Amino acid sequence: MNEKIKRYFLPEEEIPRFWYNIQAEMPNKPEPILDPKTKKRLTPKDLYPLFARELCEQEFNQTDAWIKIPEPIREMYKYYRSTPLVRAFGLEKALGTPAHIYFKNESVSPMGSHKLNSAIPQAYYCKEEGVTNVTTETGAGQWGASLAYAAKLFGLEAAVYQVRISYEQKPYRKSIMQTFGAQVTPSPSMSTRAGKNILTAHPNHPGSLGTAISEAVELAMTTPNCKYTLGSVLNHVSLHQTVIGLEAEKQMKMAGEYPDIVIACFGGGSNFCGISFPFMRHNIKDNRKTRFIAAEPASCPKLTRGKFRYDFGDEAGYTPLLPMYTLGHNFTPANTHAGGLRYHGAGVIVSQLMKDGLMEAVDIEQTESFDAGTLFARAEGIIPAPESCHAIAATIREALKCKENGEEKVILFNLSGHGLIDMASYDKYFSGDMINYAVSDEEIDRNIANLDKQ
Amino acid sequence: MNEKIKRYFLPEEEIPRFWYNIQAEMPNKPEPILDPKTKKRLTPKDLYPLFARELCEQEFNQTDAWIKIPEPIREMYKYYRSTPLVRAFGLEKALGTPAHIYFKNESVSPMGSHKLNSAIPQAYYCKEEGVTNVTTETGAGQWGASLAYAAKLFGLEAAVYQVRISYEQKPYRKSIMQTFGAQVTPSPSMSTRAGKNILTAHPNHPGSLGTAISEAVELAMTTPNCKYTLGSVLNHVSLHQTVIGLEAEKQMKMAGEYPDIVIACFGGGSNFCGISFPFMRHNIKDNRKTRFIAAEPASCPKLTRGKFRYDFGDEAGYTPLLPMYTLGHNFTPANTHAGGLRYHGAGVIVSQLMKDGLMEAVDIEQTESFDAGTLFARAEGIIPAPESCHAIAATIREALKCKENGEEKVILFNLSGHGLIDMASYDKYFSGDMINYAVSDEEIDRNIANLDKQ
Repeated sequence: MNEKIKRYFLPEEEIPRFWYNIQAEMPNKPEPILDPKTKKRLTPKDLYPLFARELCEQEFNQTDAWIKIPEPIREMYKYYRSTPLVRAFGLEKALGTPAHIYFKNESVSPMGSHKLNSAIPQAYYCKEEGVTNVTTETGAGQWGASLAYAAKLFGLEAAVYQVRISYEQKPYRKSIMQTFGAQVTPSPSMSTRAGKNILTAHPNHPGSLGTAISEAVELAMTTPNCKYTLGSVLNHVSLHQTVIGLEAEKQMKMAGEYPDIVIACFGGGSNFCGISFPFMRHNIKDNRKTRFIAAEPASCPKLTRGKFRYDFGDEAGYTPLLPMYTLGHNFTPANTHAGGLRYHGAGVIVSQLMKDGLMEAVDIEQTESFDAGTLFARAEGIIPAPESCHAIAATIREALKCKENGEEKVILFNLSGHGLIDMASYDKYFSGDMINYAVSDEEIDRNIANLDKQ
Repeated sequence: MNEKIKRYFLPEEEIPRFWYNIQAEMPNKPEPILDPKTKKRLTPKDLYPLFARELCEQEFNQTDAWIKIPEPIREMYKYYRSTPLVRAFGLEKALGTPAHIYFKNESVSPMGSHKLNSAIPQAYYCKEEGVTNVTTETGAGQWGASLAYAAKLFGLEAAVYQVRISYEQKPYRKSIMQTFGAQVTPSPSMSTRAGKNILTAHPNHPGSLGTAISEAVELAMTTPNCKYTLGSVLNHVSLHQTVIGLEAEKQMKMAGEYPDIVIACFGGGSNFCGISFPFMRHNIKDNRKTRFIAAEPASCPKLTRGKFRYDFGDEAGYTPLLPMYTLGHNFTPANTHAGGLRYHGAGVIVSQLMKDGLMEAVDIEQTESFDAGTLFARAEGIIPAPESCHAIAATIREALKCKENGEEKVILFNLSGHGLIDMASYDKYFSGDMINYAVSDEEIDRNIANLDKQ
């Protein structure tokens, strides 16, 4: 018997019992988060009105490398974890590469993406402190669907602001949220001051994650017993997502390999951080030399072409000031199909790691991403989400370099979600009508200059 | 540590190496399949023009209880098998039942349903004998998507006739088929004689599986080097699907239980046979007393209210005559959302087993099925396909009986697919506009009388 093993699962007792908090082990800690008015360094307490308290503590925790996962959360993780680590024999063959390509298949979660990994703990901690309502924003709807599901599990009411362009492009995700009892509003909406301000100035505004965040934050701040939740960007979200990389580490060991390169698509950072940080730990502590590549859309290139600045996390300027790579919080990304990547900034931790040269970034044109996604679908049978297509495109670039140089590198990428709800985007791609959106240097410079003036 | 285990997986080496052929062990063999003109018993050779030869041999094999799965097929199964066996703690809690409910989650296949289990072998055997083109029909699109995928894997061209009402209700499935390079035509179409005959008489005909089969068969018979494939009803399809039950048997052993009741939804029989036959074997040989329940839609109740007759498998009468429970091949099922169950007849093996009292059937109204599916989604986090909702409804009926009687029965059902592509159906349900379709006795009697006249 000499069978090639394709998928690696962990037994339930090996599902992580701790999240990995890279903040405690980074060579340089992130710069502080500031109050926009006083410019003073914020503390967890300052965020209590907005988020569940435990999440605020996690956000600022720079001392504990391992944070215990409460058992009720682990019980919920068992509904879909461990997710499989898959050897992509089909893709390797299609490319004719000597590289060994693996992917962590987060698309098998019931909501179709990795987002549930943080939705469950966020809903749990809200419930624990007696909150009754949660609110959030969502782009493509992966996060909103996951929060709606987690809220239902813990008996919370959920209100979701969905970026309007995605609300229209992906009507099924709205229906999924409604199946779990959530109330869904396209953003910008007339239901908030932030939304009204934008709509009265730009009635056809397609929306952006930055704007939807403003609306959700405003709702949370004006509604009793309601907390805001966020699906990416923040430190505590990245923390929860480390279950991906922690599982992958054990599964790669089962496969007898260790990744030379780890790749994930990049919107605010949640799935990238999730798969990368547990491996990056060994670069920091054990002198490993793994490369970490964030694959962002060319239409929203904050890591490759943005600037490191203090900026708001949302469009209206309701959030604290975050030290991050940004295109400016007023940047409106083009209407690409990767709704989950249409965000102007990178999380605080990632921004510091990027500055310190611990990771890299590439940008991918929309059509290259769908070329890659279609090749992957035909080789591996899984239709990837438009967001994940960016990770696949970056993986293919590296695998083809290996082919050119005859290198047998081990590449691991995160398949953050499936694209079954995104078929309208594939239709557009197959029709030949899909276009690429280049951001001009002038536009970026103008946005950053605006920022520097404020 | 006293953790409740939720999901059971098999290691790859435990993925079945043989399919289980119940024909060899049935107490009464099925009645013969007949040539409609001569009324003579058909042999495998008679079907060679239509199907791959190996499939024809499997169709008629009444002697070998175990049929070896070729290694290339097993390699493809590894892309998604084993599928998890899941203990539905959430559903049990929601119902307050002492029953232990398990489900086999076939929805994790890359195409979202169990259909790939037979699409892969059918494409493989076609390729092996040098066929270049395959054709088929599909209802909701689960089978068509799976065949498109399998055809792509083995380098075949695929043409799919999709029942028009489903083509319109579920546009994403068409896009999925196209992603894998298949050509998709709504049925009835003007591209075949069978389609033309129907459309000229009934221009707004919504289509049915029976009609789509006629069109695909006609295409296969008139196209060089093209074979027909079928996603249900036939013996060889049920054979391939036994990987479901064979895995479940090992997984139930891991859980330390054995099912008192096995339940699956019923269209032509493929997922029902797949999960049932390996367990039914122990009723036949080892005196087990498991009950097997086929859950069919009230709008298409061939097992509960149809008659056992020789009938055609398709609307136009191109197929051989099959001994089966049927509503008559001219029966047009109402436009329910469970497109995969809109078929007038039951497979030959199931029909014999039903006649011999080895299994039971129940019929489920459309709204009851969505009540059940929504309850399940909220309890287990997985949105079930409208077809699978019927199995869940039947499971809930049994679990509530257990509650009434204080019985701790073990119920296993097959979650044949997820409903992420069927959200428009859920929208309809949530809107309150969904209606039930009762078939009158007169309509059934009239159809059967027509049959008896022919």
